[in-house]
Amino acid sequence: MTHENLNRYLRSRRREIEAALDRWLSPGTGRPVSLVRAMRYAVLGGGKRLRPVLTLAAAEAVGGARARMRALPAGCAIEMIHAYSLAHDDLPAMDDDEVRRGKPSLHAKFGEATAILTGDALLTDAFAVAARTGRGIEPARTVRILSEIARAAGSAGMVAGQVRDLESEGRARPGRRVVETIHRQKTGALLRASVRVGAISVGAEAAELRRLSAYGDAFGLAFQIADDILDEVGDAALLGRPGGGDRAASKATYPAVWGIDRARAEVRRLAAVGRRSIQSFGRRGVVLGSLFEHVVDRAS
Amino acid sequence: MTHENLNRYLRSRRREIEAALDRWLSPGTGRPVSLVRAMRYAVLGGGKRLRPVLTLAAAEAVGGARARMRALPAGCAIEMIHAYSLAHDDLPAMDDDEVRRGKPSLHAKFGEATAILTGDALLTDAFAVAARTGRGIEPARTVRILSEIARAAGSAGMVAGQVRDLESEGRARPGRRVVETIHRQKTGALLRASVRVGAISVGAEAAELRRLSAYGDAFGLAFQIADDILDEVGDAALLGRPGGGDRAASKATYPAVWGIDRARAEVRRLAAVGRRSIQSFGRRGVVLGSLFEHVVDRAS
Repeated sequence: MTHENLNRYLRSRRREIEAALDRWLSPGTGRPVSLVRAMRYAVLGGGKRLRPVLTLAAAEAVGGARARMRALPAGCAIEMIHAYSLAHDDLPAMDDDEVRRGKPSLHAKFGEATAILTGDALLTDAFAVAARTGRGIEPARTVRILSEIARAAGSAGMVAGQVRDLESEGRARPGRRVVETIHRQKTGALLRASVRVGAISVGAEAAELRRLSAYGDAFGLAFQIADDILDEVGDAALLGRPGGGDRAASKATYPAVWGIDRARAEVRRLAAVGRRSIQSFGRRGVVLGSLFEHVVDRAS
Repeated sequence: MTHENLNRYLRSRRREIEAALDRWLSPGTGRPVSLVRAMRYAVLGGGKRLRPVLTLAAAEAVGGARARMRALPAGCAIEMIHAYSLAHDDLPAMDDDEVRRGKPSLHAKFGEATAILTGDALLTDAFAVAARTGRGIEPARTVRILSEIARAAGSAGMVAGQVRDLESEGRARPGRRVVETIHRQKTGALLRASVRVGAISVGAEAAELRRLSAYGDAFGLAFQIADDILDEVGDAALLGRPGGGDRAASKATYPAVWGIDRARAEVRRLAAVGRRSIQSFGRRGVVLGSLFEHVVDRAS
């Protein structure tokens, strides 16, 4: 897939995702105006939509392009959970970031109480959105999707990773296993779930799901390493915030443990794992392959 | 039902609920030790278990005593959501409470970052727990339960109530309608859902569910008014915190708008509505009736 074709794909899918998010975050009966405003700021204010794009691409790999719309609620639910996690991570008691994507972070804009409550609302509403996957697929699959999302985001997933990350701060240089556990939980689990729920939404068989999980695993870890490399290299323009921040807080990152070159090699190794995992999907898996290449390119 | 019989019932059901919560909050693969400790502190450190008791009682009203275990996951999920809401409400940026149930609040004990993350984990894990309702009932019902819980707790439910409550603070004396909206969303929605998911878990028919919803509606509002009356009367021993705190922050409460006597009359009126709503359940509805009487007694 050419760079241009991938970009065209991304633009088209992002449009679908943004339209769906816009619908689910519209003013509705009982929603306070101020809360809706803050939720929309947190979710609709930019972002690459990587997670729901993965969901749609996985659904297409299994069921073809037309099947993808069935995976849209699950993908949007995951994007809302991603947005909540950023809102809470930025809080003064956590990473204390005033800037996110080149704009004031949620609490900098609306105050701390609203930022906490907005995160809570996005996390909760995500499950109401995911429960609507039910339209058109068997309820048992919807239950499975909700369960996958909850486990990926919860006390043995994303939140666990954030807890470990905070606990590792300022400690002596962490070992590779610690760093990998943090990465797998903090960002890997939700990225992996993004791929899996897309496949489950369109009725993937066990073997297909296994292969896509391997892809999602490799993708999740590679993505985080690439992010840390970018941070280390300090490309402030791309990140929308000053580079080197993670090193400054002596956080657990691959480049800090291994150095940039070995971290880049690890991203390439993981990309090969990802490629192999989706080989059997043939042409239908091309988008997933290109998305992984895109991650590798970012880290190069 | 005599006072003694109700107490025996409550003791027995609380034991079942505590045992289930203890299981779901056990150290598991991938859960950081510190997070498990804080989650257990937030959930297992006391509390009347009113919400899951309502869930079990509603399940018994529809399906008889033996059916109740099928409603246990949904009830425990709601209790975890209740615990998360207390943890976040107590945060310095919110109500800034250092004491909860006579003990240090979560952030006073573990720090602010851990309190935020623990709340996030409880809220997320609640949906994983509720998704396990699936064992023994049709998946479509589980989807409905998850959806009910998400809507009761989310941006048009509990979180909305908390947002409106914070916004009303310090304002001129709010009107009755504003106070009622805050109550219905902040505590009413989750109490109502507690009743409904119990009924749905054991296969309630539409008419049964309608009657139980009316009961839950009345119960939820009466419970909050009773709580505000207690707070006003200032029974510090019962509340585990100094009384009159809500008036001090000039929060929206019934006693503040109407005075104690009219607030008490409203609780009695709601109790009559609740009684009528569950009449048709006969002996099976006796526990629900007694639970409502208990609320009325608290306010007297």
